[in-house]
Amino acid sequence: MAQHTLSELAQVAGALLQGDPSRTVDGTAALGDAGPSHVTFCVDAKYVDALLATRAAAAVVPRGLELVRPELARPELVRPDLALLVSDDPNRAFTKVCALFATERPRPDVGVHPRAAVAGDAVLGAGCAIGELAVVGSRARLGAGVVLHPGAVIGPGCVIGEGTEIHPIAVLYAGVELGARCLVHAGAVLGADGFGFEPPRRLGEPWTKIPQSGTVVVEDEVEIGANTTIDRARFGITRIGRGTKLDNLIHIAHNCEIGAGSMFAAQVGVAGSTRIGRSAMIGGQAGIGGHLVLGDGLRIGGQSGVIGEVPGGVELFGTPARPKREALKHFAAVERLPKLLERIAELEARLAALERERTPTQKEHGA
Amino acid sequence: MAQHTLSELAQVAGALLQGDPSRTVDGTAALGDAGPSHVTFCVDAKYVDALLATRAAAAVVPRGLELVRPELARPELVRPDLALLVSDDPNRAFTKVCALFATERPRPDVGVHPRAAVAGDAVLGAGCAIGELAVVGSRARLGAGVVLHPGAVIGPGCVIGEGTEIHPIAVLYAGVELGARCLVHAGAVLGADGFGFEPPRRLGEPWTKIPQSGTVVVEDEVEIGANTTIDRARFGITRIGRGTKLDNLIHIAHNCEIGAGSMFAAQVGVAGSTRIGRSAMIGGQAGIGGHLVLGDGLRIGGQSGVIGEVPGGVELFGTPARPKREALKHFAAVERLPKLLERIAELEARLAALERERTPTQKEHGA
Amino acid sequence: MAQHTLSELAQVAGALLQGDPSRTVDGTAALGDAGPSHVTFCVDAKYVDALLATRAAAAVVPRGLELVRPELARPELVRPDLALLVSDDPNRAFTKVCALFATERPRPDVGVHPRAAVAGDAVLGAGCAIGELAVVGSRARLGAGVVLHPGAVIGPGCVIGEGTEIHPIAVLYAGVELGARCLVHAGAVLGADGFGFEPPRRLGEPWTKIPQSGTVVVEDEVEIGANTTIDRARFGITRIGRGTKLDNLIHIAHNCEIGAGSMFAAQVGVAGSTRIGRSAMIGGQAGIGGHLVLGDGLRIGGQSGVIGEVPGGVELFGTPARPKREALKHFAAVERLPKLLERIAELEARLAALERERTPTQKEHGA
Repeated sequence: MAQHTLSELAQVAGALLQGDPSRTVDGTAALGDAGPSHVTFCVDAKYVDALLATRAAAAVVPRGLELVRPELARPELVRPDLALLVSDDPNRAFTKVCALFATERPRPDVGVHPRAAVAGDAVLGAGCAIGELAVVGSRARLGAGVVLHPGAVIGPGCVIGEGTEIHPIAVLYAGVELGARCLVHAGAVLGADGFGFEPPRRLGEPWTKIPQSGTVVVEDEVEIGANTTIDRARFGITRIGRGTKLDNLIHIAHNCEIGAGSMFAAQVGVAGSTRIGRSAMIGGQAGIGGHLVLGDGLRIGGQSGVIGEVPGGVELFGTPARPKREALKHFAAVERLPKLLERIAELEARLAALERERTPTQKEHGA
Repeated sequence: MAQHTLSELAQVAGALLQGDPSRTVDGTAALGDAGPSHVTFCVDAKYVDALLATRAAAAVVPRGLELVRPELARPELVRPDLALLVSDDPNRAFTKVCALFATERPRPDVGVHPRAAVAGDAVLGAGCAIGELAVVGSRARLGAGVVLHPGAVIGPGCVIGEGTEIHPIAVLYAGVELGARCLVHAGAVLGADGFGFEPPRRLGEPWTKIPQSGTVVVEDEVEIGANTTIDRARFGITRIGRGTKLDNLIHIAHNCEIGAGSMFAAQVGVAGSTRIGRSAMIGGQAGIGGHLVLGDGLRIGGQSGVIGEVPGGVELFGTPARPKREALKHFAAVERLPKLLERIAELEARLAALERERTPTQKEHGA
Repeated sequence: MAQHTLSELAQVAGALLQGDPSRTVDGTAALGDAGPSHVTFCVDAKYVDALLATRAAAAVVPRGLELVRPELARPELVRPDLALLVSDDPNRAFTKVCALFATERPRPDVGVHPRAAVAGDAVLGAGCAIGELAVVGSRARLGAGVVLHPGAVIGPGCVIGEGTEIHPIAVLYAGVELGARCLVHAGAVLGADGFGFEPPRRLGEPWTKIPQSGTVVVEDEVEIGANTTIDRARFGITRIGRGTKLDNLIHIAHNCEIGAGSMFAAQVGVAGSTRIGRSAMIGGQAGIGGHLVLGDGLRIGGQSGVIGEVPGGVELFGTPARPKREALKHFAAVERLPKLLERIAELEARLAALERERTPTQKEHGA
């Protein structure tokens, strides 16, 4: 197990060390789980109590945390055994510390495992690692250094760029193209049929399947989460832009185009033929309707439902989704609704009192 | 690669050709992806600009598109190289064009792949194709022409009707029955345990698992999307009716019965023991509560939440779901809410002004 | 096939038998599917018509059902062939009846199937059953009696407690720890990378992956549904507490901690670093935001969206989720909104009438 001194950690992380530079640690752990050989991490003031209680040897913290808890300015008084690595960018600092301890994640050995099933006419680049029970179909072409974990299934005619890693039992249907340096997690399914049927002409007659003869193209450096599904196009291409990251259990329907550099949180669903611009950020469980064109730099809150076209750069929230500012105004208005009912009842009573006060003459005149 | 003349396409599609009948094309593509050997498709007026910019040789379009853009009446003037295939039913017309170019999707060869694991007492009909690393359990019975793609797992005692195709790593637990001519996509799981537990008698005690001893029966011509899950019944049968189509990542809980000819979009969830009538159309991410009986011909909007019984033929929307007309009325009312707050504040001010105007005598009288 | 008399059933179930004690049955079935050799189950008054129409030999029913339908007090008059097993706790009674007929679910044979791929340095406890095409990685340690169904993939260095059963093609990434007597359903993925990226410093630059070097720890007696995903921690542990039950298609993000004895219905999503107390009950499709601390004994309604911290013991509903009582008040207020619009329009008209009635002098005074 790697051991590093706190002094080394401070240097790697670009952090200011408060504590014993010669003390060594051998790994990272969360505040509550850490033991005396661990370095931990606290970026949020609400976890300061956990920080003061941790058994860790050291913690990466943001500069200024002592403003929240003055005792942190002199931690040696409250926790003489806890060193602090103070950073202006603690997230990046801790990522660098983690990298120091990260052991290479196990991968299949380079070569083709004897229990894998690789078609005779498939083409494998240099240094590919094909794990146990992985399947590579006829005429598939894998770039240099592609890694297939156990049970991954690459359909006939697929093309995979160099350095891409595919986790267990992920599936590429025939003809799907995946770029270089992509990461596909377990159980993801790329290229299943889009969901397209001609409606019955008469009730009770069957739906007629519309052939889904297109494909899926995933550009370079895309990450696809576990059990996420991306359907093949009816015709043409369902496309995921370069550098986009999709979390788990997401559904991307046929003929969608997702712009480069986007981030989709888990369980998002996008209906068919929708085009989303670059650098979109979509919150978990949001749903986006079909046949929409959405602009660049869009942000959509969790569980929102988008049913209309949206220009670039806006932040949406709610179902139906509207600009966040407006959505919050509506939420606040709904919040005041029970009180509003009381105010209206009061208005009615006061108005009725005024009306009763009118002289008979006024009443006749008013009627 | 198949080549066809535009004249052939017009005949197959039942469309009127405006353009050179002898020009040949060799495939289909989307408006933006198409090259000069492709036929493309434009059914929506909002894509007319893309139609005028496409590099395709020809496009299937609806009759009347020239009413939106008069220049389309004489396309040879604006795009002399673009032929139009004009149809009253462009969706079906284009489907026929696609079928002309569709290459047979690759399938495992007929027979049992040497790397598959088929139990000695399993019964395989004529012409079955069992792919690499597929598993067929003891006493399973597969009808004629069943196709198992690589890694599909058919549990002991399952029964599969003729012509059904099962994609990679889909799983049928023991005893599940699947009809004829079904299509099951990758990663779908049929027959996992229903989610049933007796609550603890006292807080802190464990939940007690209720045995899920029923099964799943899927009738003929059902399509099941990638990573969709259909749980086995507690006792009896979880049933999917004939011809029903389920999209990806759907959850159907134990003891549900889904009527024939229904369409469920992606990520729908149905809780336990609910019965849904025939020809239901359920939008993406909708949720349906447990122990409900819903009528035939139901339509439910995306993301809706159904918590009560619903007769047949209605269209529901929202959470809690209500008839669409009513739901839209409520959405509109919420829309007017911030304005309403202003109107009420104004009413209060005006009423207060009137009250102040009253003579002291009137006030005493009013009190 | 096992046969039992109704007298035996009554004894096992602790139920009162109304009917022929010597009649035999050989299985359980739902009201509508049952034949004359079955025992069925009716716990809800709304199914009484189905009960009176069932072909079953006997039905387990709650005491007091005859109060709803007096004819049930003397069923021999209306359905002389239908015996009733009357119980104060019909759910548990029927579970016991089902157990009587339950046949052992088929499992792989004890030992390692010749088509499985078990690493030479993996350690298997006594009585393990490793099915066809299952994979066990290097240095993995399986306790006594662990069952791996076909295609399950256990990564290098995983630890699995005794008696745990893992269904087909479920995946444990490297280093994941799973307790004793757990049940993992098909397609579940434990230990895929958490979804963590440093944002680009400038628009258009790539997201930087934050290494996810932690792991997943699942305690004893946990059940995990089909295609559910539990991500590994960024550092430290994503933890599922003892005895917790997760339904299908659930997403648990990195660094979450789910308390013991909790129940999550299908399609729930929990964002990163959220801690949920013990004995939580979460309804289907609910979403819970990241970095929250939620108390013990929480109940959250289906489709709710939790975006703030919540103490223990409360019941939440809606998006944004609020205490159920309050949420119902808000739903009711929205319900009255269209009517409210009418009331306000009427108030405005009446007030305007009063204002018109004022004498000129009053108007000047009022202005």
